[in-house]
Amino acid sequence: MARRIDKSSVPAVTVPRLATYLRKLRELRARGVERVSSKDLAQMIDLNAAQIRKDFSYFGEFGTRGVGYEVQRLIDEIARCLGLERTWNVVIIGAGLLGTALARYRGFSEQGFRLVGMFDSSARVIGASYGAGRVRSVAELEEFCAAQTVDIALVTVPAHAAQGTIDRAVAAGITAVLNFAPIKVFTPKDVIVRQVDLSSELMFLSFHLDRGSD
Amino acid sequence: MARRIDKSSVPAVTVPRLATYLRKLRELRARGVERVSSKDLAQMIDLNAAQIRKDFSYFGEFGTRGVGYEVQRLIDEIARCLGLERTWNVVIIGAGLLGTALARYRGFSEQGFRLVGMFDSSARVIGASYGAGRVRSVAELEEFCAAQTVDIALVTVPAHAAQGTIDRAVAAGITAVLNFAPIKVFTPKDVIVRQVDLSSELMFLSFHLDRGSD
Repeated sequence: MARRIDKSSVPAVTVPRLATYLRKLRELRARGVERVSSKDLAQMIDLNAAQIRKDFSYFGEFGTRGVGYEVQRLIDEIARCLGLERTWNVVIIGAGLLGTALARYRGFSEQGFRLVGMFDSSARVIGASYGAGRVRSVAELEEFCAAQTVDIALVTVPAHAAQGTIDRAVAAGITAVLNFAPIKVFTPKDVIVRQVDLSSELMFLSFHLDRGSD
Repeated sequence: MARRIDKSSVPAVTVPRLATYLRKLRELRARGVERVSSKDLAQMIDLNAAQIRKDFSYFGEFGTRGVGYEVQRLIDEIARCLGLERTWNVVIIGAGLLGTALARYRGFSEQGFRLVGMFDSSARVIGASYGAGRVRSVAELEEFCAAQTVDIALVTVPAHAAQGTIDRAVAAGITAVLNFAPIKVFTPKDVIVRQVDLSSELMFLSFHLDRGSD
């Protein structure tokens, strides 16, 4: 009976908030809470209640004054909106320390992201075990993607290798990339790239620390 | 002879761009390039040349039309502005897979972030080696911070433990935190917290993938 949301009406800027709502709502569900008001939720996550009501309005007006929102229904709607009602197949390219740690990171599989393969270019690590399987040569990536659906590539190669690696992933048909290499990469328009840049985050901290001590 | 920049005039929103400039300029220096124009730099990093000139104007007007900017001088000014001309002492709290991987991540030390200690609350890992030393009990954090300067905490504990861990770090005098736990934490105003939320980044990808396939 679920009404289909028109996802194109949900702006991308709301995605981090939706992720925050989802996390908090799942926590509430785990504690047996069945309904929550926008006001209470606002206090829990330090957001404005009007903003929350506006965000939830994308899923239809099912909050009831004095009663609140149904926690389970909100969870279902947000998870569907975020594309989490299905499983996404993920590969990791770059089997160094970060790649190997990510391969073992449980947080991903809990959200429906399934690691289906791990790749590297170095003969030193190709064939090594990463827990769920063995590291393949990156030269096999196209063949691998032709044989099974791969939705997302996590790229954990050094900066100088990132563009070439992502070009190869795109050529193999992958259209979503999470790039951990500290370098801006260029891709065709229909490919979405998100970047996690640990060095930049540290620079934010040192910038503020240094300013504070002036 | 270095003129002191008034850092309070540099807005925080420029920090990620400054990090990008610094990376590219160091690459150019490594290739022996001594001068670069805003136009050439703009092409290399896919930014508007006027934006680059505006950002560089915080460091004084030393670009020369037709000659460009001195690469080394820009590197010095940006590194100083980002607080990278000195070393920052870092601790990692949470010696799981992600914490251990970060302890071995060379990118940090290359930028002047020095890992001085690693902490965990689990008897299973306290005392274990993490490369540069042994994991300490988080109960020793305050004493540790009293005995030596600790500037930054990388927090890689599970979500449910993050707020308590960060409260403890703040009580120990740490004023800059990079939080990898997928939960919003609250701190006093003079503490800066940056968050790296891998699950949210993946949700961005699934949101777009799912929308693309509608």
